[in-house]
Amino acid sequence: MINIRYVLEARPSGAASEQHFRREELPVQQPEEGEVLIKVHNISLDPAMRGWMNEGTTYVKGVEVGAVMRAFGAGEVIVSKHPGYLVGQMVTGLLGVQQFAVEKGAYLTLVNTDIAPLSWYLGLLGMPGLTAYFGLLDKANPKAGETVLVSGAAGMVGSLVGQIAKIKGCKVAGIAGGSEKCTYLTDELGWDVAIDYKNTPDIAARLRETVPNGIDVFFDNVGGEILNAALTQLARGCRIVICGAISQYNQTTPVGPSNYLKIVSARGTLTGIIVFDYFPRAQEAINDISSWVKEGKIKYREHIIPGIEQFPAALNKLFTGENQGKLLIQNIHA
Amino acid sequence: MINIRYVLEARPSGAASEQHFRREELPVQQPEEGEVLIKVHNISLDPAMRGWMNEGTTYVKGVEVGAVMRAFGAGEVIVSKHPGYLVGQMVTGLLGVQQFAVEKGAYLTLVNTDIAPLSWYLGLLGMPGLTAYFGLLDKANPKAGETVLVSGAAGMVGSLVGQIAKIKGCKVAGIAGGSEKCTYLTDELGWDVAIDYKNTPDIAARLRETVPNGIDVFFDNVGGEILNAALTQLARGCRIVICGAISQYNQTTPVGPSNYLKIVSARGTLTGIIVFDYFPRAQEAINDISSWVKEGKIKYREHIIPGIEQFPAALNKLFTGENQGKLLIQNIHA
Repeated sequence: MINIRYVLEARPSGAASEQHFRREELPVQQPEEGEVLIKVHNISLDPAMRGWMNEGTTYVKGVEVGAVMRAFGAGEVIVSKHPGYLVGQMVTGLLGVQQFAVEKGAYLTLVNTDIAPLSWYLGLLGMPGLTAYFGLLDKANPKAGETVLVSGAAGMVGSLVGQIAKIKGCKVAGIAGGSEKCTYLTDELGWDVAIDYKNTPDIAARLRETVPNGIDVFFDNVGGEILNAALTQLARGCRIVICGAISQYNQTTPVGPSNYLKIVSARGTLTGIIVFDYFPRAQEAINDISSWVKEGKIKYREHIIPGIEQFPAALNKLFTGENQGKLLIQNIHA
Repeated sequence: MINIRYVLEARPSGAASEQHFRREELPVQQPEEGEVLIKVHNISLDPAMRGWMNEGTTYVKGVEVGAVMRAFGAGEVIVSKHPGYLVGQMVTGLLGVQQFAVEKGAYLTLVNTDIAPLSWYLGLLGMPGLTAYFGLLDKANPKAGETVLVSGAAGMVGSLVGQIAKIKGCKVAGIAGGSEKCTYLTDELGWDVAIDYKNTPDIAARLRETVPNGIDVFFDNVGGEILNAALTQLARGCRIVICGAISQYNQTTPVGPSNYLKIVSARGTLTGIIVFDYFPRAQEAINDISSWVKEGKIKYREHIIPGIEQFPAALNKLFTGENQGKLLIQNIHA
């Protein structure tokens, strides 16, 4: 059996592209004691991956040059040398951009495909789902009637944040790129406000019109000018949760929010969400989110791209905003 | 009796100077029912005054063009038409840049000059003292053994923050401009680290050397590059308290902290201190600080400039860092 995988060939300084990865074909490795061999069905493409390509350590260590590119994945145990896993069980973990993965059992999560499709455990019921759930509910604790603003609102995390905020009785405003995404937010998801940043020259002015009482919770996936605009319209006591800054990951000179003193005058707080901190509480999120799905309160879209060879090009869709829903590679095994 | 006062003549776009104020001489006004007339002894010069010269509202409304420049002051009641004040009592309040002030009683604070000189109620026992006390203790809640970094460390607020942190058993590092100020911090105040930003090309590198375990609490008076450097050396769970951004107040294009995502990876929080919120608790701070002074645990310096005519030039000393201690004007009444 052959494993096709993508390793980090060189660190990008701006956007990542084809040239920063190297495709390799190698015989599939066999697991040692305590390990399992997994046939990877889905590879998750997440904005955080761009940061993992940098040198040094932020919340996790950067990928080494020459190592398999780090990615979340979901697959099936096909050989097990770990007492906790049986052949045929479905798991998720940091399986990398490859078709087969050998992993220590301790680093894997068993998932229940009776309640949801396997791929959902990379999105709605995986890291992005947990990020949205705990980032909103634990970090920002929105109250019914409050106004929640979400940037990157049509993305995986953003769209879930806003839907959970609606369930909690909040007024929800989203910022997204393009009229199609904005129509999705208002017409499909029932949000109160959608701002198309690509066709809004002055986002701060639009926020003054659309959320005149100010932003109580801002869940930011984007950074840059959108963050800076949101800071001008904070309500007193606002909570800002920084989830990411996708507008900045490809910038060699990132921009800071020059309006940060508005947090002070609004008596606000700025904090962040690192989903790894919430692993021990994952089941809370999975229970709630899957109940909401069953009750028809959550809509979920996947954007599945077939074939690992599409990986480098597909990754870029996250940064150009071309994806419609949770972006995944579907492995096609030889 | 003649009142000399300075009114806001024009709004500055960068630094404030002589041309933005107009000196006026007018007969002293008499108080109406509910008001008192105060002979102003000391006018406080504070970094916040630059912000008050701007149009619009942040945490308070900007001063109107043509109105007396807003400033804290301390003085003696010389005529009272308010039942709560007797002639001869000492008060503080927003008395403005002038020699005599007519104020509503409700806006004044009676002070006890038996326990401290009147002018101290504009500094150590006034707004700046409360800012340092509540900003550090209530907002950041430092624990013994933690590392507290203070910028603008030789200034009124900064030097008090660090001294309170020392009392609480913290390791204290300060960033200040010039070797004289840095020697004051280490030799006079007994702080653990002092970094002279004027002679330190790479502040982030110096922080890595001097606070290798990271910053648990950062109390920032300065903003700009110093804030950005501090963000690179945060300890996990750090609390950042933004008090001000004196490096930015005179900038037409303020700089935001491009390293703000470090707050996320450090699981930190950023918040601010607005001293007005703590007025109801002022006595807590006054009690503690005056006890510490009595016990010899707090050192305090005043930089008193005689004559209201020095006001515009004196205000600028805050921004050039020329002041040594709490900056005040001493009125000389005709």
